[in-house]
Amino acid sequence: MSAGFAFELLKTDGGARRGRLRLAHGSVETPAFMPVGTRGAVKGVTLDAVAALGADIILANTYHLHVRPGDDVIARVGGLHAFAGWDRPILTDSGGYQVFSLSSRRQVSEAGVVFQSHLDGKPLTLSPESAADIQARLGSDIAMVFDECPSWPATHEAAEASMERTLRWARRGRDRFLDLAAGRVPEVVRATPGQAQFGIIQGSTFKDLRDRSVAGTVAVGFDAYAIGGLSVGEPIDAMYDIVEHTAAQLPGELPRYLMGTGMPDDLVESVARGIDMFDCVLPTRNARNGQLFTRRGPISIKNARYAEDLTPPDPECQCPTCRRHSRAYLRHLFMSGEMSGAALNTLHNLHFYLDTMRAIRNAIELGTFRVFRTAFLDTYSRRRPD
Amino acid sequence: MSAGFAFELLKTDGGARRGRLRLAHGSVETPAFMPVGTRGAVKGVTLDAVAALGADIILANTYHLHVRPGDDVIARVGGLHAFAGWDRPILTDSGGYQVFSLSSRRQVSEAGVVFQSHLDGKPLTLSPESAADIQARLGSDIAMVFDECPSWPATHEAAEASMERTLRWARRGRDRFLDLAAGRVPEVVRATPGQAQFGIIQGSTFKDLRDRSVAGTVAVGFDAYAIGGLSVGEPIDAMYDIVEHTAAQLPGELPRYLMGTGMPDDLVESVARGIDMFDCVLPTRNARNGQLFTRRGPISIKNARYAEDLTPPDPECQCPTCRRHSRAYLRHLFMSGEMSGAALNTLHNLHFYLDTMRAIRNAIELGTFRVFRTAFLDTYSRRRPD
Repeated sequence: MSAGFAFELLKTDGGARRGRLRLAHGSVETPAFMPVGTRGAVKGVTLDAVAALGADIILANTYHLHVRPGDDVIARVGGLHAFAGWDRPILTDSGGYQVFSLSSRRQVSEAGVVFQSHLDGKPLTLSPESAADIQARLGSDIAMVFDECPSWPATHEAAEASMERTLRWARRGRDRFLDLAAGRVPEVVRATPGQAQFGIIQGSTFKDLRDRSVAGTVAVGFDAYAIGGLSVGEPIDAMYDIVEHTAAQLPGELPRYLMGTGMPDDLVESVARGIDMFDCVLPTRNARNGQLFTRRGPISIKNARYAEDLTPPDPECQCPTCRRHSRAYLRHLFMSGEMSGAALNTLHNLHFYLDTMRAIRNAIELGTFRVFRTAFLDTYSRRRPD
Repeated sequence: MSAGFAFELLKTDGGARRGRLRLAHGSVETPAFMPVGTRGAVKGVTLDAVAALGADIILANTYHLHVRPGDDVIARVGGLHAFAGWDRPILTDSGGYQVFSLSSRRQVSEAGVVFQSHLDGKPLTLSPESAADIQARLGSDIAMVFDECPSWPATHEAAEASMERTLRWARRGRDRFLDLAAGRVPEVVRATPGQAQFGIIQGSTFKDLRDRSVAGTVAVGFDAYAIGGLSVGEPIDAMYDIVEHTAAQLPGELPRYLMGTGMPDDLVESVARGIDMFDCVLPTRNARNGQLFTRRGPISIKNARYAEDLTPPDPECQCPTCRRHSRAYLRHLFMSGEMSGAALNTLHNLHFYLDTMRAIRNAIELGTFRVFRTAFLDTYSRRRPD
């Protein structure tokens, strides 16, 4: 286990777990939601605001920061924390997801992936080793191992081949990480000495492949484990089923991270299945598109019915947006294309996600998570008539 | 004088004046800078942030709010303060400047201006009476009288004709305002009962026309007076000369507002000439273009020399941006088109303007404005080599 990394399991309540993660730059209360800060910035809001909303940790994208401004630049100024002015924990993804979803003309081989930058078409390479090097330079608290992200649906054969490759890459990525940690790669600056590394479980929606992925990845031995390859288009019940099946096999004394999920009810349902960490672009991306999450479900702020509605987006909400502003004003800002509309919507949605996690943690501490879960799902409608 | 409107002249220091304006929604310490909130929103930042920066008052644009969402909508929800969630004073401009600068195919007659909306080409009319009505519905603390804004340069003949028309419109605009205030126009909701109205001095860069405009406008009798038609392309010395010449003739017991000005050194120079109130888009607009104001002059954050510069934009600055972030990070956000970059730049520039006004007020109180002015102009370079 990496120096500086520890997970304390404080309480369980059914499948739900209340924990505390200790990382190089501070503690994270779990279950935790990590706002997505793609380029070292959470879209639409300042990091001051993200801190004020109570985020313990943010996620940044290895791929995007590698392309611009470059991990060499970030290493020279002392790592991503110094560069971005964020002193709390940061998790960096492996870059795999973006390589497979953003770049054109990629060539995947056993060595790694050669692809063209989505910015300028420049040829770039990511491999288990280089993804570890880049994240060492970025100096995140948690680095993710480089994995292959198959699209959905996939045949059993394709998903198996991809999962097997991810396993082989996991061994190489872990070896490189351990070499970096031991100072055996002096040419790569390691901006955060206490960096930890998580492995990623793949296997699409096939339980037998997930089983083999868990066994193989845990055999490699990471600081903790994430479930990848979900929230990529599969039916929601299939996702919940794979989450439940996979989480149950992961080491109970380590945090479990479900990558890229999800809607607010997905967070509640996944906590019930033993997940401790989440990231998702939905609260920030949907904010910019005018969708606001409320206790009763999402609302679309551009709806004409809100033109003269002086109530806040969510009357029960204590966020900076709801304390000062009305639906009428937010609709006006959206219709006018005012930047501060996106900022206010983002503040609200991030608050909603972070506050939902606070409520979840509180319920687990009180041993009332089952009641909380039922009440939340009774009230929350994924598709609110709008 | 409108109920609720008062100006207290606390101290003078040479030509500079330290005062306090009492308006329907609160006090404004002068000399004051008013951030521009075109559509009831300051571009790039939330009103929470604008309040936290210490702005006593913001300016909103009558033209833009008339076009969208409509002053009828705003009146129905109780006025602009309720609509925008801003409980401090608001000044609304007359709409004249935008009609003359934004709209196409305008037809000016003695009655007013018929023009096409810049949004959808819909025909709209503004007149001295309708501009007063719209501002009554918006419920600003200070309404501006409808004026004609000639472009620069103008012949003496054209400037004279325009100034004369503005004088005739001033009489009509004031009459309408007084009718509204006295409840003689029951069909127009007046959202802020204590609204005040300022007259506007025109006359381009011709002193004789400025003299006649002052005499005629003061004869109409407004709550206070603004100097319009400057910062429209004339040489800086001509502007200072007209400001000095005109301000000296305005009633000393009332606040004097210089519209649409200016660069930081223009504020210092205009305070020296007796100006009490300012508005300008430069701090917000230039922020979005990557220009940051510092004590030594503006810097362009996109400059490659800042790529690895971990110092804040202005090492002497106490704003939220400089307390947390570096030039390297702000450059990265600008180059990446991240919205939060515009927000952070705007916070910095608004802080710089508002803080400069605080320093000016402090110097006047101490009787050291002359020393402050010299030191400021010695240090500040309008065009910093960058």
